[in-house]
Amino acid sequence: MIFPGKGGEMMVTAIILLRVERTKVNDVAEKLADTEGVSEVYSVSGRYDLIVIVRVASNDDLADLVTEKMNPIKEITDSETMLAFKAFSPHDLEAMFSVGM
Amino acid sequence: MIFPGKGGEMMVTAIILLRVERTKVNDVAEKLADTEGVSEVYSVSGRYDLIVIVRVASNDDLADLVTEKMNPIKEITDSETMLAFKAFSPHDLEAMFSVGM
Amino acid sequence: MIFPGKGGEMMVTAIILLRVERTKVNDVAEKLADTEGVSEVYSVSGRYDLIVIVRVASNDDLADLVTEKMNPIKEITDSETMLAFKAFSPHDLEAMFSVGM
Amino acid sequence: MIFPGKGGEMMVTAIILLRVERTKVNDVAEKLADTEGVSEVYSVSGRYDLIVIVRVASNDDLADLVTEKMNPIKEITDSETMLAFKAFSPHDLEAMFSVGM
Amino acid sequence: MIFPGKGGEMMVTAIILLRVERTKVNDVAEKLADTEGVSEVYSVSGRYDLIVIVRVASNDDLADLVTEKMNPIKEITDSETMLAFKAFSPHDLEAMFSVGM
Amino acid sequence: MIFPGKGGEMMVTAIILLRVERTKVNDVAEKLADTEGVSEVYSVSGRYDLIVIVRVASNDDLADLVTEKMNPIKEITDSETMLAFKAFSPHDLEAMFSVGM
Amino acid sequence: MIFPGKGGEMMVTAIILLRVERTKVNDVAEKLADTEGVSEVYSVSGRYDLIVIVRVASNDDLADLVTEKMNPIKEITDSETMLAFKAFSPHDLEAMFSVGM
Amino acid sequence: MIFPGKGGEMMVTAIILLRVERTKVNDVAEKLADTEGVSEVYSVSGRYDLIVIVRVASNDDLADLVTEKMNPIKEITDSETMLAFKAFSPHDLEAMFSVGM
Amino acid sequence: MIFPGKGGEMMVTAIILLRVERTKVNDVAEKLADTEGVSEVYSVSGRYDLIVIVRVASNDDLADLVTEKMNPIKEITDSETMLAFKAFSPHDLEAMFSVGM
Amino acid sequence: MIFPGKGGEMMVTAIILLRVERTKVNDVAEKLADTEGVSEVYSVSGRYDLIVIVRVASNDDLADLVTEKMNPIKEITDSETMLAFKAFSPHDLEAMFSVGM
Repeated sequence: MIFPGKGGEMMVTAIILLRVERTKVNDVAEKLADTEGVSEVYSVSGRYDLIVIVRVASNDDLADLVTEKMNPIKEITDSETMLAFKAFSPHDLEAMFSVGM
Repeated sequence: MIFPGKGGEMMVTAIILLRVERTKVNDVAEKLADTEGVSEVYSVSGRYDLIVIVRVASNDDLADLVTEKMNPIKEITDSETMLAFKAFSPHDLEAMFSVGM
Repeated sequence: MIFPGKGGEMMVTAIILLRVERTKVNDVAEKLADTEGVSEVYSVSGRYDLIVIVRVASNDDLADLVTEKMNPIKEITDSETMLAFKAFSPHDLEAMFSVGM
Repeated sequence: MIFPGKGGEMMVTAIILLRVERTKVNDVAEKLADTEGVSEVYSVSGRYDLIVIVRVASNDDLADLVTEKMNPIKEITDSETMLAFKAFSPHDLEAMFSVGM
Repeated sequence: MIFPGKGGEMMVTAIILLRVERTKVNDVAEKLADTEGVSEVYSVSGRYDLIVIVRVASNDDLADLVTEKMNPIKEITDSETMLAFKAFSPHDLEAMFSVGM
Repeated sequence: MIFPGKGGEMMVTAIILLRVERTKVNDVAEKLADTEGVSEVYSVSGRYDLIVIVRVASNDDLADLVTEKMNPIKEITDSETMLAFKAFSPHDLEAMFSVGM
Repeated sequence: MIFPGKGGEMMVTAIILLRVERTKVNDVAEKLADTEGVSEVYSVSGRYDLIVIVRVASNDDLADLVTEKMNPIKEITDSETMLAFKAFSPHDLEAMFSVGM
Repeated sequence: MIFPGKGGEMMVTAIILLRVERTKVNDVAEKLADTEGVSEVYSVSGRYDLIVIVRVASNDDLADLVTEKMNPIKEITDSETMLAFKAFSPHDLEAMFSVGM
Repeated sequence: MIFPGKGGEMMVTAIILLRVERTKVNDVAEKLADTEGVSEVYSVSGRYDLIVIVRVASNDDLADLVTEKMNPIKEITDSETMLAFKAFSPHDLEAMFSVGM
Repeated sequence: MIFPGKGGEMMVTAIILLRVERTKVNDVAEKLADTEGVSEVYSVSGRYDLIVIVRVASNDDLADLVTEKMNPIKEITDSETMLAFKAFSPHDLEAMFSVGM
């Protein structure tokens, strides 16, 4: 069953690609995972260092998280935020993550 | 609480950045979300069209999903798979998603 | 006076960079300017061909505009959508554009 | 109704893509929004940090704004200015913004 | 003596970087050099194929030249137009080129 | 009439794309415009900061100008020199600029 | 005979592209070759400086090698890790390298 | 123990990054793994599709393998060959692979 | 002894980076090596396919070679010509190659 | 006559693209031209600063020249070495350059 994120107070989801100072990858990951609105942080193979999944209530919360919480973290050298337009999933993401908020 | 993915039969997580033929974004998203091992597919703003979160049992399953299931989808014009080394999250992802597998 | 887009039913603004088939720049611009939610379309110098300013009521409207209205326009060869987190302006953009919606 | 920017003392519009020191995004946005000729500044998702919409009376004013006002702002690390050739909009941009000049 | 392009009906100058189908470089150069508003066309070494110097009376003329005259030339595969903010030269460019217009 | 730069002591023309420290754009432009062999310097919109048109008597003069005069200017952060193979122009560039040399 | 890495405790193989401070290429190569899990390090022609072949028992070992052992090496300026999905080889790589583990 | 590939008839090693038509990744991998001189082929995560490890007796053999054997494979869309200057490894690669040649 | 290419009828040298259709690399190399003014053609490892060393008498000859002889070769997909400003060599290149012209 | 570099103790040829600190271009060129194995160094127009032609007896010599002689030159900011697979030339390069070695 697919939840194409339709109607009601929709969870705002964003995926953020991060490049981080090489020696600080785990530290930054843990700091972000402690940040309200951050659902998951993955250290990854490939060209990026961390991928952050954000699940918040509004665009304002997303804006605050990026500009007020993430931007001040100096060890982040580059970031690219992507807003999720629609979510397609066999899981009921709204239920899973709103319960866990 | 952070689950740095330590020990035991660990879920193998990967994040895949996809560029898709512009008129086929939703179709491809739905086809992928129906594919075993695909946890979430997001259509997103920015340079990429879709971001796929894969949660499987082994690297072989990941390899099969990418080479046997995703590669044959012709509307995908470019893909970049990133293996998650470690997951940091306030949620117990193993419990949440293994239940949902 | 600066309207940092705080609180209440906020207008969702996005800026979209487009590359278009060279001979179809004006046609695509006119088609987009006729599309509900599109506030302005500029043909521009530089690496991109068109820049679209979208002002809509919700992320869903933005998602529909991008995936349902813009993506099917075949003459668009590449697009990059950027969500506006905050607007800073000497003008009262909410008043100016919500009146004009 | 579309205003393809034809004849008469036309407003000169430019869109400027900016990369900014990560911890200074809001400060730079506010400083620019206070600058004569700057109509709107948006902090945005994606590869850029700020997008500036400039509406001035002549190319000289645009040149002065870029070289005399923007270039000296050290926190701006990269900028790309795009001149708007033509504007297509359901709004009467000339009226809306010349009133607000 | 330097003419920083100050005041009066200033000539609008633009420099355009073009990539052209390899076998059509000279043909496109000659076609462009015959176009009103085009001052010089150079076939060049390096990553680009042609560089066009445009000298016209207004932004509208520049817009028409790019969108109406250049864009329809199918052998041009990529173009990047740069508006000259200021001209610095030991020559009196206004006199030299306005005479020759 | 087109001057495809044929035979006789031909003027050697080159176009140079420059990136310059943002706060030094005008200073560098004026310094270059005072340099023998530099015909025009334009501050421009887009990805580059300055575009220099060089018109000299020989490749050696071009080499000296680039390596001896331009390279030592520290505020230039990146440069890309393109030799003009042929010039196509309604103007008699040889006459215009050799007189002005 | 081709070993497409099927079933059983499979060796996890990864190939890592490294850019290294130019004067430290050999030092870094020797330090990595001494690291448990590193099978081969090649200094190479082309855009990269070193290519590392890693052969370990699990994704966790790969994660530890990259984040704990490689990331702290300051002379590495850029790294891109690629997980091998499948190995195709006339050699019995499992036998050759597990013996040598 | 590290074999910095010193003296005697040295094995010539090269690493080749390949992009392949998405639906032909495994086919091309198997065809290459059957080619004399190809030691290993890995299908990989990340921006490339296949990574080929070549171990041959001379530069001529490497040249023939690339230009005569690999280039004619149409499903390969892009390739980048890197010659190994030196090999650093705890394994005696010369022995392991020359035996297996 | 270094010949910094000073004074007298200097040989004009250029180095050209070529990408060629993968299956036509040797054919194009042989065709170019038969072209007057082409001193050497190398098929190479790395991102490019062929590197051409041109040694001619004048810029016009270089222009003709590039636009009249090389551009019409359809199997060349991309080319980047670089003019040699100065040559530094223990060999007397002028003597070596002018004899062989 | 074309020497496709076939058989016997073949000269190993490599072409190296270098970016150099802008004020040190000639110094680095002269230092390299004095280095055994370096046949020619050209300062060039375009995106690179120097192009080095290396002609040595073996891959080891090439490796030593790159890692031991070139890498320690701090003014070189970026280098890309390309091994010549085959040489096609009307000149007998082996004779010309082995005599001059």
